[in-house]
Amino acid sequence: MAVYTNVSDDELAQFLTEYDLCEAIAFKGIAEGVENSNYYLETTTGRFILTLFEKRANPADLPYFIELKQHLAANGFSCPLPVAARDGEALRTLAGRPAVIVTFLQGLSPRVPNAPQCKELGLGLAKLHQAAADFQMKRENSLGPDSWPVMWNGRAESADALQPGLADKISADLAAVATGLSSDSALPRGTIHADLFPDNAFFLGDKFTGAIDFYFACTDALAYDLAVCVNAWAFESDGAFNYSKATNLIAGYESLRPLEPNEKQAFPLLCRGAALRFFLTRLIDWTDTPADALVKPKDPLAYADRLRFHRTAQSISDYGG
Amino acid sequence: MAVYTNVSDDELAQFLTEYDLCEAIAFKGIAEGVENSNYYLETTTGRFILTLFEKRANPADLPYFIELKQHLAANGFSCPLPVAARDGEALRTLAGRPAVIVTFLQGLSPRVPNAPQCKELGLGLAKLHQAAADFQMKRENSLGPDSWPVMWNGRAESADALQPGLADKISADLAAVATGLSSDSALPRGTIHADLFPDNAFFLGDKFTGAIDFYFACTDALAYDLAVCVNAWAFESDGAFNYSKATNLIAGYESLRPLEPNEKQAFPLLCRGAALRFFLTRLIDWTDTPADALVKPKDPLAYADRLRFHRTAQSISDYGG
Repeated sequence: MAVYTNVSDDELAQFLTEYDLCEAIAFKGIAEGVENSNYYLETTTGRFILTLFEKRANPADLPYFIELKQHLAANGFSCPLPVAARDGEALRTLAGRPAVIVTFLQGLSPRVPNAPQCKELGLGLAKLHQAAADFQMKRENSLGPDSWPVMWNGRAESADALQPGLADKISADLAAVATGLSSDSALPRGTIHADLFPDNAFFLGDKFTGAIDFYFACTDALAYDLAVCVNAWAFESDGAFNYSKATNLIAGYESLRPLEPNEKQAFPLLCRGAALRFFLTRLIDWTDTPADALVKPKDPLAYADRLRFHRTAQSISDYGG
Repeated sequence: MAVYTNVSDDELAQFLTEYDLCEAIAFKGIAEGVENSNYYLETTTGRFILTLFEKRANPADLPYFIELKQHLAANGFSCPLPVAARDGEALRTLAGRPAVIVTFLQGLSPRVPNAPQCKELGLGLAKLHQAAADFQMKRENSLGPDSWPVMWNGRAESADALQPGLADKISADLAAVATGLSSDSALPRGTIHADLFPDNAFFLGDKFTGAIDFYFACTDALAYDLAVCVNAWAFESDGAFNYSKATNLIAGYESLRPLEPNEKQAFPLLCRGAALRFFLTRLIDWTDTPADALVKPKDPLAYADRLRFHRTAQSISDYGG
């Protein structure tokens, strides 16, 4: 939660001359998103979010993210719509960074989602998958299964420092996932959000109003996206699994797109893999973030708790599916 | 720039039932203010800022700040207006913190103010002083001249660590200010903002649209407020004094409220005192802030540069007055 790049008034005013948005009447850094700088921008024509892509963002990926959001919005899925400047391009440069203006999405991110919101979110995820079904661009999941052993390499000591004995368990998780998921190339694939945590989902009351932050979106197994959501939405802050939230997530999803038999069969392992992905990136951030960094790294152990649950799950019915 | 306290949806929804503002449709932490947590809050009836007062805020001072803003707004000075709940009270409790909802103020804070904005700001400051002229509440300046020797006590070593020889200069500044300002109790006093930096002032183009963040406001010499502004607005980021910006600040102020002879005479010393105040609080933050803090302390040496200028100033004409 930080603003990394400051934008001067002159830079902003100059930048806005490229658009048909008129002049800024409010401009505030917002504490949203961990990777990029985001500003609330109000002009005389409307309200927007201005994002500056910081160093972790790969410039080559940005057209994918922008065209995906344009495609989703055009296909009825509610998300921030990138605004094209007068020359037709939405992806531009500001303060030396790639930058985009997107429309403002109403709604609130639930700090502690409730069970009805989980059902809505499951349905929303299925809608996202459906709206993206004919999106032609592809992007490899750079944080997919192939990356996990690479991220784990040399990190055993850090894991054991966090929790003695954890390294062996993680190694076993990686082996299980490598064996179990490698034969699953037949799982239905498509465009996935890959990071649909509660802070990336908006609601008005219990009604899902849209998703933001598509900067991990990629082409991967659709059911993996649902497995990410089970990890992100169906565990409480004390690490406890919430069966009714998971049940609702899956039921909401299947009300629009029923899972296929091989997706159901792979589900516990997909959940375990998704937990590994977040455990590993958090472990890296935890050990590599300087103590004086602006953003506090998130605790990897939250995902060690989830992994403990997934190791014992036998089938999708353990998740209420 | 941080949000220190998280507010859950349930807490927010419950909190809003105390008001006639209807339901929240957007709620985002904003990276504004160093001391407190601020949220952009939109409801079906309008747009607001929700502030949670963090531990540095003295609860006993909060009614003063809130009534001051209500008084200023009622007297035509543009600032965020605290919104009373149905029981008539604007100061409330949320997430265990004192909290207030204020109206949303249009405008942008200049990152690098230009000379016309300095003229507008000077006029705006005079308007603030005028609008507050009949405000009856008083608040002692807890960071006024009496506090400076206290803050300096035991800090000489830290100052010399920043810049060898600096401690002796600061001691001389304190002595000069103690001698020079003690005889100035006859300076016109009133309610001052005391922290009107560019990030607390809003503009549309070059037009001043209002001020925010009154949490250092107090009863003190009016000309001291202008001296704070000279320090905050008329020095460039490389430390250079900008004569035309200072000229405009003073001219803008005097276009509404001409300075009295004793205010003019005291002006260089008031500027030196204001620079000392910010040097000392920054020095304390610099040396006392843990390396892993969310907010990076500001560099005290920026004010050592300003002090060097003020030591050589002979009269207000050196500031373009």
